[in-house]
Amino acid sequence: MDGAHKPMVVVIGGGFGGLATVKALGRAPVEVTLIDRQNHHLFQPLLYQVATAGLSATNIAWPIRSLLRSQRNARVLMAEVRSVDPIKRVIFHDHGFLAYDHLVLATGVTHSYFGHDHWEPFAPGLKTLQDAAEIRSRVLSAFEQAEATPNPLERRRLLSIVIVGGGPTGVELAGSIAELARRTLARDFRKIDPADARIVLIEAEDHLLASFDPGLREYARRTLVRLGVEVQNGVRVNDVRVDGVETSSGFIPSRTVLWAAGVRATPAGEWLGADVDRMGRLVVDDHCRVPRLDNVYAIGDLAHFIGSDGKPLPGVAQVAMQQGAYVGRQIADSVTGESATARFVYKNLGNMATIGRRAAVAEFGHARFAGFPAWLVWLFVHLMSLVAFRSRVTALVEWVAAYVTYERGARVISARDETADRESATRPTPKPPTRT
Amino acid sequence: MDGAHKPMVVVIGGGFGGLATVKALGRAPVEVTLIDRQNHHLFQPLLYQVATAGLSATNIAWPIRSLLRSQRNARVLMAEVRSVDPIKRVIFHDHGFLAYDHLVLATGVTHSYFGHDHWEPFAPGLKTLQDAAEIRSRVLSAFEQAEATPNPLERRRLLSIVIVGGGPTGVELAGSIAELARRTLARDFRKIDPADARIVLIEAEDHLLASFDPGLREYARRTLVRLGVEVQNGVRVNDVRVDGVETSSGFIPSRTVLWAAGVRATPAGEWLGADVDRMGRLVVDDHCRVPRLDNVYAIGDLAHFIGSDGKPLPGVAQVAMQQGAYVGRQIADSVTGESATARFVYKNLGNMATIGRRAAVAEFGHARFAGFPAWLVWLFVHLMSLVAFRSRVTALVEWVAAYVTYERGARVISARDETADRESATRPTPKPPTRT
Repeated sequence: MDGAHKPMVVVIGGGFGGLATVKALGRAPVEVTLIDRQNHHLFQPLLYQVATAGLSATNIAWPIRSLLRSQRNARVLMAEVRSVDPIKRVIFHDHGFLAYDHLVLATGVTHSYFGHDHWEPFAPGLKTLQDAAEIRSRVLSAFEQAEATPNPLERRRLLSIVIVGGGPTGVELAGSIAELARRTLARDFRKIDPADARIVLIEAEDHLLASFDPGLREYARRTLVRLGVEVQNGVRVNDVRVDGVETSSGFIPSRTVLWAAGVRATPAGEWLGADVDRMGRLVVDDHCRVPRLDNVYAIGDLAHFIGSDGKPLPGVAQVAMQQGAYVGRQIADSVTGESATARFVYKNLGNMATIGRRAAVAEFGHARFAGFPAWLVWLFVHLMSLVAFRSRVTALVEWVAAYVTYERGARVISARDETADRESATRPTPKPPTRT
Repeated sequence: MDGAHKPMVVVIGGGFGGLATVKALGRAPVEVTLIDRQNHHLFQPLLYQVATAGLSATNIAWPIRSLLRSQRNARVLMAEVRSVDPIKRVIFHDHGFLAYDHLVLATGVTHSYFGHDHWEPFAPGLKTLQDAAEIRSRVLSAFEQAEATPNPLERRRLLSIVIVGGGPTGVELAGSIAELARRTLARDFRKIDPADARIVLIEAEDHLLASFDPGLREYARRTLVRLGVEVQNGVRVNDVRVDGVETSSGFIPSRTVLWAAGVRATPAGEWLGADVDRMGRLVVDDHCRVPRLDNVYAIGDLAHFIGSDGKPLPGVAQVAMQQGAYVGRQIADSVTGESATARFVYKNLGNMATIGRRAAVAEFGHARFAGFPAWLVWLFVHLMSLVAFRSRVTALVEWVAAYVTYERGARVISARDETADRESATRPTPKPPTRT
């Protein structure tokens, strides 16, 4: 309300990177607008638990407005960005437009089917709450339909779940679905035994969890096998169809295929016409700036940033958070006229993945953990990181209850059952019975 | 697995009535199949809280399989019934068919637009979890869009929410949305003040809550007005459009209209070709039997049962539960050869409705309560009734937290925003800015 024009900072994307940027600008003499097309920040590391009915959507999502309520220089806009004019410094969105002085792009990534986008209807990926609801609905519906079908071949197909991609998301999904089938659902059906479900994890490389230490990779593989997951390494997917997956080592009949194999950047690169890498990520300099554009930054999964080992930084939450905090400080310093020349240096705090409900692998510097201790560390770190206090408490309640009872509170199919629609063409019509 | 043929009982519908039927057959020498097209039982009396972001879907829904896990003579089938042949005693569903000896229909009701089904896209009703997610998404998105739009007339339209129907559902929705706007969202926006929202409750009759005592009706009306709800009694809806509601007393511009005005029975009457009333409910005799058909019962909201006062019993949970338990016992008795001739007698245990977060009206016999004591009774009865222990605990955690903080944990928009799609045709394209 004062006469001076305050610089306008626009942050696109309310994930870990975007939120960290806004918070780092908390005391800066700027006006910040955070734009996201969803109204919520999502704690993505636990999204696989929503997809496998361990947690509710609302345990890991929180309205962005609540998170930024007390930051008076920040406003939130739920809108979808259509394009950016980096010369006039204007963003166009579905409700209008917005001028900026500094722009931070933090729109993240989406699934990539490596040029086979027609696989998507048969193999959904896991990035949003909608994705998680869809996967949960498909997995739970597969068991329901297997119980209902009189056809043994179709029953087998329904009880086969294929996960494509052996990174952390694929490993976590496979472990969690195996436990769902072998424990949670075990006593619920009469005609089928969910424990008979075939759960296949396909990875094109020779090992799972490529970014981890070889010993931990092997531990993860063994643990998954013990949970009843069929791990297929060095196997490539050639086709995904409504009735299964064609791989380099044969056809796997399945009605439920989940995609955790690849990502590509959201189209922010196209908005700017700037240089992108093979995955569509914006190539940035060592200050997270988009070269040749003034005051435009890209951070997190969206950014191709060369780390100290000469390779791009991985697409993990801590990179996004550190870059967000860094860019926020950079902008604050430039606005207040301080010299701000230090380049961004990534500090790797550790690397973790869970396998089922009491095992995990973790690396911190040169230390490596596996098994139950790693799982406890994983649990602690994730609970402490959940942004909002209430999410933490209710997520903890759900977890403790699930741990004690093997129940899963979120086991409700509420998405529209598109699997059923998709298949109705192939399902035979019931024949009238003869009864005397 | 024994040689003797056990009578097959098929129950269609896993609501209060269907579940009570199955449970009453727990010790009977029969095979029970419960068919539902959803995998969950829904605690409908609290559905309005899911629609207004007070509770998560999973707080009030529970997999039917879990509820019946320990009942060995019961199986659950998730399927959609297509037709019934009452002569051959066969049910056809989307996965095949099923023979029965005894059939219990408990499929409930859906919304009725009194012949104006084209209003439905603009005025969703509240019967399922999907409905609740849709309403939550529309209400929360309306505030988001109001914050985003530059057009003051459109902003006003977005900040107007109309609820049609002054029964318990309409009253509970209106009170809960008023509190959402005036308290929960109050500090979250920068351009709009959610407390300015216009919340209109329209009822064609001269008073709200027709089934309650006049003193309690008046208390409910006064409490709603104090919460900031505009109560319009004796007003009829003539048309519902994308931009508002045409009523007998004028046009109300609004982007969010909710329908709580009428119900009609699900099509079980059509399956049987039996007598139905004006609402499509199956007319049953004083044993809940469908006349002229052998071993076919209809219960709960689906049934038109004449009570001791000569009027049909109301569509409430207690009628359904009592009828379900009665029919289950009837079938058990007839199977074991006991004489079972007592007609069904409804015992009214009381009548309640909440208005916001600390007021309610309640009647028990001749006793009448209003205000905070009634709300405490309401809370106690509903918590104790929630079928599963875990739902109760987590719902209680959410409520206590919401009560203390005015926060609402479930404030996440995850349904696809159909409102936005619906409106995109009418929204002007942003014009390019001029910037010097």
